[in-house]
Amino acid sequence: MTDALILFAHGARDPGWSRPFQRIREQVLAAAPGIRVELAFLEHTRPSLEEAVAVLSSHGIMRATLVPLFLGQGGHLKQDLPALVARVRERFPSVVLRTTPAIGESQQLTAMIAAWALEQHRLPG
Amino acid sequence: MTDALILFAHGARDPGWSRPFQRIREQVLAAAPGIRVELAFLEHTRPSLEEAVAVLSSHGIMRATLVPLFLGQGGHLKQDLPALVARVRERFPSVVLRTTPAIGESQQLTAMIAAWALEQHRLPG
Repeated sequence: MTDALILFAHGARDPGWSRPFQRIREQVLAAAPGIRVELAFLEHTRPSLEEAVAVLSSHGIMRATLVPLFLGQGGHLKQDLPALVARVRERFPSVVLRTTPAIGESQQLTAMIAAWALEQHRLPG
Repeated sequence: MTDALILFAHGARDPGWSRPFQRIREQVLAAAPGIRVELAFLEHTRPSLEEAVAVLSSHGIMRATLVPLFLGQGGHLKQDLPALVARVRERFPSVVLRTTPAIGESQQLTAMIAAWALEQHRLPG
């Protein structure tokens, strides 16, 4: 295996914050058991992107797809992430890193969120 | 109509950041045209929760469901949101505000995100 999927999220001080992201990782693995999947975080939560790519590089991974698990695209994705990616590419030139659109760009995913929100609204309570 | 759905998100300095959240609102409206749906933000982006509930209250809305459009649950949902909700309830006692789980708590939604991330990983590029 020479390629990997990196799920990139914001990070937070609360250690329980990353649970849904860990679940997403497990759900990717359940759907595609052979794949290598790593979480990486912008701040507060470890590993950082650089740490995650260091591990991948040490395992001979040559290509990685980075999927930003962000709904909105602001400074974190427009400025911070490109700067991080540039640094990682410089430090690990053997790993080809491709960044995909953020999850919020998928109309299919936002429609699922909309449907779920509506379902919550309609629940008695 | 006396009830409303509030989609609550983080907010950001970048004005383009809220686009996916506006799309989620439009997708709820497309699925349920009769419903009243408002966006509200924790910081940076307007309206705040208090501003959104003020508008609802002035339109005679008596019940609102607040759905947190957050994947991870950290300080923002565990401390900031309950404090905000308490303040809003005090200021607008005529509006019954019910908070639902955050989107990241839905295993169905995280599975959709996992499937989408995998799809992005498998795209040629």
